[in-house]
Amino acid sequence: MERIGVVGVGRMGANMARRLVDVGYRVTTVYDVRPAAAQELAKELGATACSRLADVTAQSDVIITVVVDDKSMEAIFAGKKDNLLQGAKGKFFINCATVSPETHVKVEKLAKKVGARTLEGCMASSINQARAGTLYLMCAGEKATFEKLRPILTKLSDDGKLMRYIGPAGKAAQVKALVNMVMNINTAGLAEGLGLGAAVGLDLKMLMEVFSQTGANSRVLVTDGEDMVNRDHACFFSAAHAAKDSGIALGVAKKAKLNLPLATATYKQFKKMTQVGLGDLDKSGIAELTFKGRGPIKKR
Amino acid sequence: MERIGVVGVGRMGANMARRLVDVGYRVTTVYDVRPAAAQELAKELGATACSRLADVTAQSDVIITVVVDDKSMEAIFAGKKDNLLQGAKGKFFINCATVSPETHVKVEKLAKKVGARTLEGCMASSINQARAGTLYLMCAGEKATFEKLRPILTKLSDDGKLMRYIGPAGKAAQVKALVNMVMNINTAGLAEGLGLGAAVGLDLKMLMEVFSQTGANSRVLVTDGEDMVNRDHACFFSAAHAAKDSGIALGVAKKAKLNLPLATATYKQFKKMTQVGLGDLDKSGIAELTFKGRGPIKKR
Repeated sequence: MERIGVVGVGRMGANMARRLVDVGYRVTTVYDVRPAAAQELAKELGATACSRLADVTAQSDVIITVVVDDKSMEAIFAGKKDNLLQGAKGKFFINCATVSPETHVKVEKLAKKVGARTLEGCMASSINQARAGTLYLMCAGEKATFEKLRPILTKLSDDGKLMRYIGPAGKAAQVKALVNMVMNINTAGLAEGLGLGAAVGLDLKMLMEVFSQTGANSRVLVTDGEDMVNRDHACFFSAAHAAKDSGIALGVAKKAKLNLPLATATYKQFKKMTQVGLGDLDKSGIAELTFKGRGPIKKR
Repeated sequence: MERIGVVGVGRMGANMARRLVDVGYRVTTVYDVRPAAAQELAKELGATACSRLADVTAQSDVIITVVVDDKSMEAIFAGKKDNLLQGAKGKFFINCATVSPETHVKVEKLAKKVGARTLEGCMASSINQARAGTLYLMCAGEKATFEKLRPILTKLSDDGKLMRYIGPAGKAAQVKALVNMVMNINTAGLAEGLGLGAAVGLDLKMLMEVFSQTGANSRVLVTDGEDMVNRDHACFFSAAHAAKDSGIALGVAKKAKLNLPLATATYKQFKKMTQVGLGDLDKSGIAELTFKGRGPIKKR
């Protein structure tokens, strides 16, 4: 059985590591830019917290990366002093961060040069699903690499029921960008509907019930509606992440010479959240911008 | 059993009349600004096509109105030469058009003056549901009027399962405006997601499947997704209506001094459709604005 390394042990990465240990995999190494986070998880899982990326590669066969953004991907795969591709011949990488399609294509190319293989494993789910191994997992890259990694991916995606092979490198990132773009639009729109309902004195419980029975229904109504009303913005998917992902989608749109007014308005709203200091709130926190009398609140 | 009149026999009004006849009600009179439409339906249902609104009132006990907009409501209830309130003492009106909350309040006041009663019956469903008697029906006005009309309303709303009493006059229109505002945002957002997916060469069937499994899921994905891909914009709910309803919601927002960037962007998109001659398409036709190489097409 392969030795697994995990790079980036935030909310998602740490829970994927726990899940893999639960189902019998050996997670041998973990790494994070915040050494304390890596050490804590290493202790919990009986793994080694590496201080160098090259050590993760040396002590693992399959390395799962869940980092923050394009810049972090660049750093872990092409950092000058230390990176994951040093001594990476024969190693496999599953890159789960939501980053731009170009970055996935670039990383695949770099990895090939040293005889390593990469696969995108874009996740369209959240923390609870990572822990439970029920992630919706969109995979892209070489089909052979996907097949080789299938057993591990299966354990992360409800016995493979929620796993899809999308196409060559970059394609899963495109799909993921579109999923989050549409999700963010629906979220920002819901916040406007509930905010206006509150402003005119409607019973918001009744309003959400009506939304749920009509053309206004959506997944985010279920996941974020109550949180918007109750101002419960404990973070599952941050507003800052939402801004980043809508930004990636708009980058793709710009290249395709497509004007997307809703996505643009949504990007501006989530960007505004980061600008007024609300970027760490859950995406449901966008309601802070649309309910009268709300605004920047204390972080939880 | 009450004699029922129907004013405005477009796609919704005509099917509600058919449904009421199906379940045993007597639809005695119908009226439309297009006399041919009224005559055709009258023939089908064995009713009288009236050329004067006051005649509808005279020959009915309960009058259901399903007209186009605020202006039409003004015309049928306060037209100088001929209107529904002439000789309306003791009559009941169920007003189903999606119009501004203010109009419902005003009409209620006018009706009371002559001893008539009104109820909002805002519908958050479409043509098939009208025909089948499974409308989601949001009612507002005096509670006693609602109770009096309950048997008829029940037959239109899946044996009452989809009927809600919302509050005093104007409140159902507020909820309806919010439902359509959020629905229109989700529709415009979905059109952007699918349009961008098409632009970068993704398999749209796959993309819709992924949307349906993730945070991008919504009711409009089910009702409009395929139509957007297939350019099947046969009209259930027109883009012109969508523009009107988003406009009503923005009017409410303006009064509440609330800035809603998503609703505003959506309004502009649907308004643009009417401006480029696509207002008669179904709301799914908004995809014509977001898919490359599409644009004004022949009406079906």
